[in-house]
Amino acid sequence: MNEPGQEYRFDPVRREWVILAPARARRPRGVVTGGLWHEAGPCPFCPGNESHTPPEILALRPDGSEADTPGWRVRVVPNRYPAVVLDATSPDGEPQHRPGALRIAGYGSHEVVIETPDHAATMTVQSVESVLLTLKIFRARLRTLSANRRLLHVQIFKNSGHAAGATREHPHWQIVATATLPAAVASELRALREYRDRQDRCVVCERIETELDEGARLVHRNDHFISFCPYASRLPFEMCIAPIRHAPDYAESSDEELLELADILKRTVGSLARVARDPAFNLVLHTTPSEAARASVAATGSAADIDFHWRLELLPRMANLAGFEWGTGMYINHLAPEEAARALRDGAPAQ
Amino acid sequence: MNEPGQEYRFDPVRREWVILAPARARRPRGVVTGGLWHEAGPCPFCPGNESHTPPEILALRPDGSEADTPGWRVRVVPNRYPAVVLDATSPDGEPQHRPGALRIAGYGSHEVVIETPDHAATMTVQSVESVLLTLKIFRARLRTLSANRRLLHVQIFKNSGHAAGATREHPHWQIVATATLPAAVASELRALREYRDRQDRCVVCERIETELDEGARLVHRNDHFISFCPYASRLPFEMCIAPIRHAPDYAESSDEELLELADILKRTVGSLARVARDPAFNLVLHTTPSEAARASVAATGSAADIDFHWRLELLPRMANLAGFEWGTGMYINHLAPEEAARALRDGAPAQ
Repeated sequence: MNEPGQEYRFDPVRREWVILAPARARRPRGVVTGGLWHEAGPCPFCPGNESHTPPEILALRPDGSEADTPGWRVRVVPNRYPAVVLDATSPDGEPQHRPGALRIAGYGSHEVVIETPDHAATMTVQSVESVLLTLKIFRARLRTLSANRRLLHVQIFKNSGHAAGATREHPHWQIVATATLPAAVASELRALREYRDRQDRCVVCERIETELDEGARLVHRNDHFISFCPYASRLPFEMCIAPIRHAPDYAESSDEELLELADILKRTVGSLARVARDPAFNLVLHTTPSEAARASVAATGSAADIDFHWRLELLPRMANLAGFEWGTGMYINHLAPEEAARALRDGAPAQ
Repeated sequence: MNEPGQEYRFDPVRREWVILAPARARRPRGVVTGGLWHEAGPCPFCPGNESHTPPEILALRPDGSEADTPGWRVRVVPNRYPAVVLDATSPDGEPQHRPGALRIAGYGSHEVVIETPDHAATMTVQSVESVLLTLKIFRARLRTLSANRRLLHVQIFKNSGHAAGATREHPHWQIVATATLPAAVASELRALREYRDRQDRCVVCERIETELDEGARLVHRNDHFISFCPYASRLPFEMCIAPIRHAPDYAESSDEELLELADILKRTVGSLARVARDPAFNLVLHTTPSEAARASVAATGSAADIDFHWRLELLPRMANLAGFEWGTGMYINHLAPEEAARALRDGAPAQ
């Protein structure tokens, strides 16, 4: 695991870090034949191939089977081609950003969550109970990683399909915990705090209330959650899944809430697959960053002054980003979210 | 051109606008056969097909030929499927953002710059003189569009290749002028100002000096410009082309400077094509936004307090962005810019 060369480098104009990870150049990228992409070699995530991954971090093994053997239902392993590593060291042993430093060691954790032993069981095909197991694993990993004070942010995400950056087909998520707080996350924390300071309420709660009131962009709902196409959707069929009641931290979710999340997540991803002909997509969790990160953004220096409202973003990857988006960070979207939501609710293929 | 429905919508969490442009859903997207993408129908940018575009805004016609007929060297036309339009009107006729407004009319200009009559003449194949004509057109359009006080930002960019978002092969650039200042541009203005306040110098000048001193990331240079792989490169073979001497505004460039820019731009794009096997790429101009936009960012409210250093970003699109990048805005790059620059200088295909 000790890959030389992982490091964070700072861009003083964008004021953001980049992760330089030479290890990832050796990732098997698959081959394209007849216009279709195929993954490389045997699947390292299938039962029987446990030795193709680094030793497991955690696994749900209802049959009491041994680590790194078949018998698991969900399995968490270190990424074999990690972006960041837990044994990275700086010359001064200090991974935190000091003012003016343009480089720090690539300290962090990069994990793969293998959702199911079944290579073909995408989330739409899995049972709600199977999806629930993965969602409980996220809660456990968030709690463990957030306890490490050298990690300022934990990003949980899913790449599904080649166009969404996946190099493996077997259903999986990834967790990347970093020693730096991403500028976009810091900016989001500030946006929520400043809105609360001004309006005395959570801006996400307010958006959700509007979505429930208006209904035009609503896709699914249950007791605890809604899924909807955001008013300012960047992409056709973009969706957001959020707890209806204010909830800063995914890791504080109850079993009952995660069961409801499994239900709405499976239905929401299923609607996208049906209506938009099974596109590649990303799922991205936005949840409150660590206490240390929150304190760094709070004007008072106290993490308690920072609030959040966690949610999942579902980003269909049906078109390639162009230069305008790269230059400005603004998106041009040709499908109104009201149209997208109507099609998703109706469930008939559109476009 | 009066497409109903163009509008800007605001996301209060990302604090950024999205452009909703239903007209763009009708863009011909081409077809994929045998794994290769082919554009749709006859090329509207070729000589003889002038009637396939809206009437031209501007053209260089050394033979004195009539508008919208053959004979041009460079031709600027409105985008047939515009993201924003000059005749957009709000109910109150006001396209500017008022505090709290979540929607404004899609006022703006969306233009196509057809670089050459020759369908196959990519920038690498064009003469330096041909590239220069396009660069002069940018200067003219920036001057004209910046004089419109309802336009806060002008974005000039190039999509080359399907993976970079292009739907046409014929060499062209696009210009999108918007009624809103993109948050990323405002943030960049603030970064430059705050660095100058603290260090009493331009952070881009400082980076360029470092690149010239160290040489490890340098690719090309001439009297006025350098091209280099940025220290915190987000993408393999990412490059930046910048004036060596401090220069806020592209539109203030002299003919002599633009000739040198044409030279280094052609060489830099050529090196990428040679070394990385002709990948899709974006070129994105970063230049100072309008006086009104600068004043809106300056603490004093005076545009004179805002400085800038213009440059071109060259972004090769060889891999698909994944969920981590979408969630955090941080990039994971597997190729060190020092390695990339060495390969680009040597000119031999790498990787």
